[in-house]
Amino acid sequence: MSRQQREALDALLRSAPRPETRPGVEEQRRGFAEAMTRPAPDGVATRRTELGGRPALELEPAGASGHGRLLYLHGGGYVIGSAGTHAGLAGELARRTGLRAISPDYRLAPEHPFPAAVDDGLAAYRELLAAGADPAALVLAGDSAGGGLAVATLLAARAAGLPQPAAVVLFSPWADLTASGASMRSKEEADPIFAADDIHAYADLYVGAGDRTQPLASPVFADLAGLPPLLIQAGSNEVLLDDAVRLAARAGADEVEVTLEIAPGLPHVFQHHYGRLEEADAALSRAAAFLTSHLTARSWPAPR
Amino acid sequence: MSRQQREALDALLRSAPRPETRPGVEEQRRGFAEAMTRPAPDGVATRRTELGGRPALELEPAGASGHGRLLYLHGGGYVIGSAGTHAGLAGELARRTGLRAISPDYRLAPEHPFPAAVDDGLAAYRELLAAGADPAALVLAGDSAGGGLAVATLLAARAAGLPQPAAVVLFSPWADLTASGASMRSKEEADPIFAADDIHAYADLYVGAGDRTQPLASPVFADLAGLPPLLIQAGSNEVLLDDAVRLAARAGADEVEVTLEIAPGLPHVFQHHYGRLEEADAALSRAAAFLTSHLTARSWPAPR
Repeated sequence: MSRQQREALDALLRSAPRPETRPGVEEQRRGFAEAMTRPAPDGVATRRTELGGRPALELEPAGASGHGRLLYLHGGGYVIGSAGTHAGLAGELARRTGLRAISPDYRLAPEHPFPAAVDDGLAAYRELLAAGADPAALVLAGDSAGGGLAVATLLAARAAGLPQPAAVVLFSPWADLTASGASMRSKEEADPIFAADDIHAYADLYVGAGDRTQPLASPVFADLAGLPPLLIQAGSNEVLLDDAVRLAARAGADEVEVTLEIAPGLPHVFQHHYGRLEEADAALSRAAAFLTSHLTARSWPAPR
Repeated sequence: MSRQQREALDALLRSAPRPETRPGVEEQRRGFAEAMTRPAPDGVATRRTELGGRPALELEPAGASGHGRLLYLHGGGYVIGSAGTHAGLAGELARRTGLRAISPDYRLAPEHPFPAAVDDGLAAYRELLAAGADPAALVLAGDSAGGGLAVATLLAARAAGLPQPAAVVLFSPWADLTASGASMRSKEEADPIFAADDIHAYADLYVGAGDRTQPLASPVFADLAGLPPLLIQAGSNEVLLDDAVRLAARAGADEVEVTLEIAPGLPHVFQHHYGRLEEADAALSRAAAFLTSHLTARSWPAPR
């Protein structure tokens, strides 16, 4: 279908300069912001605010219903990225769901290592609930590290006795900080963005000498029982493919309603490329339909 | 949602008498036919015919378009079951897709061990193509052993240089005759139908002393490259859960477009219970939408 688009994207990603030594954290953050930032789509108003004690970006699509709310957690290896760099992706999902979204700038490593991000995710979720949000009208989404963080946030919420939201969407979640998936090697050539070394480098900065198998750092090792319906999307061309597969397997085994979609020939968080990659638009449409269908179902009276 | 329905189904399945010794094959066939047979739904006309040299059941929903065609492969461990026992499930999928379906009585073990079933699957597929069916207008579906057989049939078709169909749906596929999935033990209590012993017994009858890891017997060990878009549905309460998970993982790694859905609290091939289990109807609707969307896409001119 969009083979040309897929190949052009792959070539574009491979054309990025690869410095011989890994740049410092500040330079990584600047480079990522320059390369990846897309503004919120037309018709989605943004506003700086605060959530859970952190700066946050609110994204409100024209005609948003007042009812539901989307909490979006951006990716970037827990080290780089921000609500601002992901305003396009979060805003596009907000636009397609018709939901008001809020995306916090959770604290980043190495300045703020694990579990700072999880603490901030939980504080954000807790504040949405405390502000009177009906959990059945709340949905979560996240990409890459933000996908792992979304699951960790819900595990922390479960441990705190808080109710779960209506549904969760994860784009290429990073859910195993031990990097033990078979795809870490088998997809290293096919992945135009990451090598296994990059994944280890982010994990070093986020957990350092800490235990990388603990569930709030690596939800592939968690008991996921009680989590809400989950949609996981990944590309076949990513070293993190098996993070998505194993998280889905774990969720299903733990009696969580889960859908896993693997898109051939596509890289990590290919949804970033909506508007110029057919599969990105199709994936975002399915993600939005998944979220809103679970909101709708919960708003209706339970069937007999 | 339908927790009462799920629990009633689980209790019903567990109430079936469990003989102390495994009944003979003929008795298993008779018992399965008595317990499981549902006739084709209202509005779906059936006709006995032949396909690929085997008896077959044609199922034609009222108002079926003449164009597309569904090849359905029934389950039953390669030992029991028939097109007739599965007329309800195949007919319901035909009705929801609006496609004319055909379901062959492929040869069963132990009278006809591996690879007789695969030979018959391939002969059926080959005859549909030879009769002038556009492969882009053909879809396949199968449940349990019929799900594994559907994949094996497409691997055999690939080896024979035949074109692939537009899409495939698998309900709780049995895809690993070595029974090496972790769910074989972890879900033994939760599964109201099968224990690991049952799976081994079917494999004994089908492959005997043959190599159970060969791809046409156990597609979880196959290279699946080149297969068409695949939707796999499974319940969380089945020892075969990991067959579905690993088949999806293999497909995704091999650049096949794949969707895996795991439905919590549900048994093997829960789709059989359409009309009395909400999740069965929802799953069949998604399966039908998946199949027809891929037919539609292929019938249109390719996008620029």
